[in-house]
Amino acid sequence: MSYFKINVEVRLKKGVHDPQGETIKRALENLGYSGIKSINTGKVFTIKLEAETEEQALQAARIYADRLLANPVIEEFTVEKRT
Amino acid sequence: MSYFKINVEVRLKKGVHDPQGETIKRALENLGYSGIKSINTGKVFTIKLEAETEEQALQAARIYADRLLANPVIEEFTVEKRT
Repeated sequence: MSYFKINVEVRLKKGVHDPQGETIKRALENLGYSGIKSINTGKVFTIKLEAETEEQALQAARIYADRLLANPVIEEFTVEKRT
Repeated sequence: MSYFKINVEVRLKKGVHDPQGETIKRALENLGYSGIKSINTGKVFTIKLEAETEEQALQAARIYADRLLANPVIEEFTVEKRT
């Protein structure tokens, strides 16, 4: 068994309203910055876990994301080994 | 001018307490999953913006992160082009 660091990135699905991103965009514009087309927000979880292989670690992270980290109604996620 | 998509990842600095990560770890253990050593949480912002070059887009994203997206007392950030 060895330890793996897996990144789970959770984002809103396409078409889901992102009020936090819009607020940040407006705040940056109020600070004088222009040229920003959009800002999308998401969450990232770095999971350090024990597994036999990298594929097993990724699979475990997918299960955690599915069960607990992402809301499948409005969110989607990707997993990858953290470099 | 063209559009670039830049990812800003904001994380807690090393040594800063991450109660959200600890709660998720405990919740997964209560669901019966073992072998999790730690979970760290962070935020990710995908900024679509207009710039002359990729380096200019990255530089702009660094400024936004510095001024608005990250709290320098407890957080650090990285910027990279979104692939």
